[in-house]
Amino acid sequence: MNGAQSLIRSLIGAGVDVCFANPGTSEMHFVAALDDVTEMRGVLALSEGVVTGAGDGYARIADKPAVTLLHLGPGLGNGLANLHNARRANSPVVNIVGDHATHHLPYDAPLTSDIETLARNLEGWIRRSTAAEKVGADAMAAVRAASEPPGRVSTLILPADASWGEGGVVAEALQAPDTPAADPATVQGVVSVLTSGESVVLLIGGRACREPGLRAASRIAVSTGARLFTETFPARIERGAGVPSVERLGYLAEQAEHQLAGAAHVVLAGAAAPASFFAYPDRAGDLVPSGARVHVLADRSQDVVAALAAVADLVAPDTEPMLQEPSRPELPTGPLTLQSWVEVVGALLPEGAIVADEAHTSGLTLPAATAGAPRHDVLTLTGGAIGFGMPVATGAAIAAPDRPVLNLQADGSAMYTVAALWTQARERLDVTTVVLNNSAYAILRLELQRVGATGDGPRANALLDLARPDLDFTKIAEGMGVPAGRATTAEELAEQLRRAFAEPGPHLIEAIVPPLL
Amino acid sequence: MNGAQSLIRSLIGAGVDVCFANPGTSEMHFVAALDDVTEMRGVLALSEGVVTGAGDGYARIADKPAVTLLHLGPGLGNGLANLHNARRANSPVVNIVGDHATHHLPYDAPLTSDIETLARNLEGWIRRSTAAEKVGADAMAAVRAASEPPGRVSTLILPADASWGEGGVVAEALQAPDTPAADPATVQGVVSVLTSGESVVLLIGGRACREPGLRAASRIAVSTGARLFTETFPARIERGAGVPSVERLGYLAEQAEHQLAGAAHVVLAGAAAPASFFAYPDRAGDLVPSGARVHVLADRSQDVVAALAAVADLVAPDTEPMLQEPSRPELPTGPLTLQSWVEVVGALLPEGAIVADEAHTSGLTLPAATAGAPRHDVLTLTGGAIGFGMPVATGAAIAAPDRPVLNLQADGSAMYTVAALWTQARERLDVTTVVLNNSAYAILRLELQRVGATGDGPRANALLDLARPDLDFTKIAEGMGVPAGRATTAEELAEQLRRAFAEPGPHLIEAIVPPLL
Repeated sequence: MNGAQSLIRSLIGAGVDVCFANPGTSEMHFVAALDDVTEMRGVLALSEGVVTGAGDGYARIADKPAVTLLHLGPGLGNGLANLHNARRANSPVVNIVGDHATHHLPYDAPLTSDIETLARNLEGWIRRSTAAEKVGADAMAAVRAASEPPGRVSTLILPADASWGEGGVVAEALQAPDTPAADPATVQGVVSVLTSGESVVLLIGGRACREPGLRAASRIAVSTGARLFTETFPARIERGAGVPSVERLGYLAEQAEHQLAGAAHVVLAGAAAPASFFAYPDRAGDLVPSGARVHVLADRSQDVVAALAAVADLVAPDTEPMLQEPSRPELPTGPLTLQSWVEVVGALLPEGAIVADEAHTSGLTLPAATAGAPRHDVLTLTGGAIGFGMPVATGAAIAAPDRPVLNLQADGSAMYTVAALWTQARERLDVTTVVLNNSAYAILRLELQRVGATGDGPRANALLDLARPDLDFTKIAEGMGVPAGRATTAEELAEQLRRAFAEPGPHLIEAIVPPLL
Repeated sequence: MNGAQSLIRSLIGAGVDVCFANPGTSEMHFVAALDDVTEMRGVLALSEGVVTGAGDGYARIADKPAVTLLHLGPGLGNGLANLHNARRANSPVVNIVGDHATHHLPYDAPLTSDIETLARNLEGWIRRSTAAEKVGADAMAAVRAASEPPGRVSTLILPADASWGEGGVVAEALQAPDTPAADPATVQGVVSVLTSGESVVLLIGGRACREPGLRAASRIAVSTGARLFTETFPARIERGAGVPSVERLGYLAEQAEHQLAGAAHVVLAGAAAPASFFAYPDRAGDLVPSGARVHVLADRSQDVVAALAAVADLVAPDTEPMLQEPSRPELPTGPLTLQSWVEVVGALLPEGAIVADEAHTSGLTLPAATAGAPRHDVLTLTGGAIGFGMPVATGAAIAAPDRPVLNLQADGSAMYTVAALWTQARERLDVTTVVLNNSAYAILRLELQRVGATGDGPRANALLDLARPDLDFTKIAEGMGVPAGRATTAEELAEQLRRAFAEPGPHLIEAIVPPLL
């Protein structure tokens, strides 16, 4: 057994059975081993940003890692932006990055570079396998590190000789450690805060955005009057009829300041202390209201859900959570607007959908329009590195083949990783992509004003403008094997969405919408 | 004057007047300043791999840096693969990477990451600007470092507060230092080797692949009988009628071993000692023939061309270089083959063309078919990070608006940075892209065999296969505003190439070719 074979067999033993891959020569023994270990599903993507974003999306839905297969430093580099999002999502992702054979490195061949420098950006786990007999154990350590609460990106650098060398050993699966519980004294302290009669904001994040956490948090809020929000960009939030509907903290500092105004206490459960997404001249970055005290009930490496449940059992023993009633918007008519397209989505979102939301400024009113839709999960842009929507939708669809996936996708962001459509076509994934085409980086028009940049001239605006020429996403999608249509009215969008949800396989709908600005 | 304005004014003073950009919020003051300093041309690209590859292509043709504008760590990450190629090409490139305002970093906002880790992979120059009044001088230092022989990638990290802060100072242009000459004793030593009567290979690279270097090297070869090759992947090689035609060292180790066989001496002039591109089990990585001695006439940080000329004046004072005669293939007919498509290109290549060559296995016979074409430059894949062709062609066209640019582009590699087509359309660049569509990562089929991977089964081959579904590059191109056609015969390719060369603006031709394997 060579190192590559032992690697894949070890992964299978650990329950890791999907590999998103964009391989090169140094990964050829790994590729060949896929015919020896047929339990591993290899999924080819045409660029590394698709590979890593798919790994992130898979992990968010499967709650276990997929592996990514990447080609030396440039392959990891191309994949870094979506790994940054995975890092911020605490998604367990295991990168296998091929490198030259160890004895070949001194020649400084063209593709040689210091791969470790790149991996360090991810602040996760890094190891270089040094021999075939160690590869299995190294892979298992990578899986364990990725899976250890709260989840992280592991990067195993795999020299070609460790891959092709004989003597591979299949490693035994390592148990991921249990998630540590919050300190009971901390729980008691938060109970005191919540029952103090002072104004409290409860800010939840991470695992607390799934149903059990939302239910416990809602009971607390109902019983104590605490204001409840989730972090701005949860990795995965459960929503819809029958689940507590919890508002997200606003992206714009002004929104968040309004939401948090007057709080004497901010209790954090799996969320970071509120801070603005970007800095702006003469505005505070720290969004904790002046004079408010911050209390950490549990951080993400702890069992946030159990901590919330413990608090709820103390402050709200007989209180039921406030569950969202079923409610859908009426199907609108007429030309698409920023309001009407989200109403179409709210009216038609299928039961059990997974929504990969990269709609940016086009989706400002999406949460309200979909709050009472059937139950669904929303995956958001945790790390701010755009180009996540299409790959994450791809990975989510692999993780949940029986669920419809809806990717709400801003036009500018789509173009970073648009090759994901090809993988969706190849794997016949049930992904419906709605590209919100407003011919602009509209969020940057907003930000150009917000940062107080003095210029608003033609040369600046040209860099925020996606017209000249207009992108035609129907042609781009068809060029990658995904059937596509264009919608300019609510009726067209509704008709095309219905069809896309009804038919298996991927579809793309280009919705022509006005820019926010 | 704010920091951003002083930055751009300083760059203009240094002769740097093109900025390839994919900006975000933290770069908005830079963007706004483009309306204050209108000498700087901002060129928007839709993904960072296009930005950095365009910077590389621009530098290879303009012999000076453009700046790239990138958005924090994820932006630099997405751009790393083509910066790796730029590093290997010794292209002077100045990255401006925006970061959060300095006082915002402690909040660890979602886009925060350790940008320096990424920049270190490039082994170039790195600095973080700490205040508005330093930005101009920092930019000038970045330009100087990039331009210092032999050229490198500079990365200036620009916190938003350094950009928006007042007190910017325009820095005076710094002179790049002269290129140091080779040691006269070394020149004499190489003369002794060349006149020893023993078998010598002269391997040239870097600047020696331009006409003056080629002429000097050719004189040496003609006079002494030394075998002359260029490095395998020159950043820029001048070719065609009237220029010495110098064969490149082969990509496959077997080819290179054949070319070098029997040499007692290998003289290096701007090239690294020959080593194989990848390692293979049971094959030597070092391609220097056993027993041969290696002599470094000049490395890339030295004046390689002057050193070659000095040697030539000593060993070949009255010898003329062997210049390539004009000669073009006949226009072939019938279905496209791996031979006929290169003959069409050889028959029609216009005078003064710049060829961005990422044809891989489809272009094995391209050098022979174009050797006697009118004078042209070829830009090659210096670092092995695929996805370089379309962006490099884009940057080259900006650097040389009066020259036709021909991008010979493998299908798989095209998909990493295909959004370059949109920039070509927006800027109305005279780039003709010929996509060699063989529905495969054909080079990996070859490599799968060459690495001795035992498996050659359906699951391995599926990861090397670009069919299911077939990519339709005409639709993808049209979706980005580039007129496109498909050619399946030599006649169709010739007709479409003629039209593309005759009409201004970008064109794409999808040439359907058989895979090598």
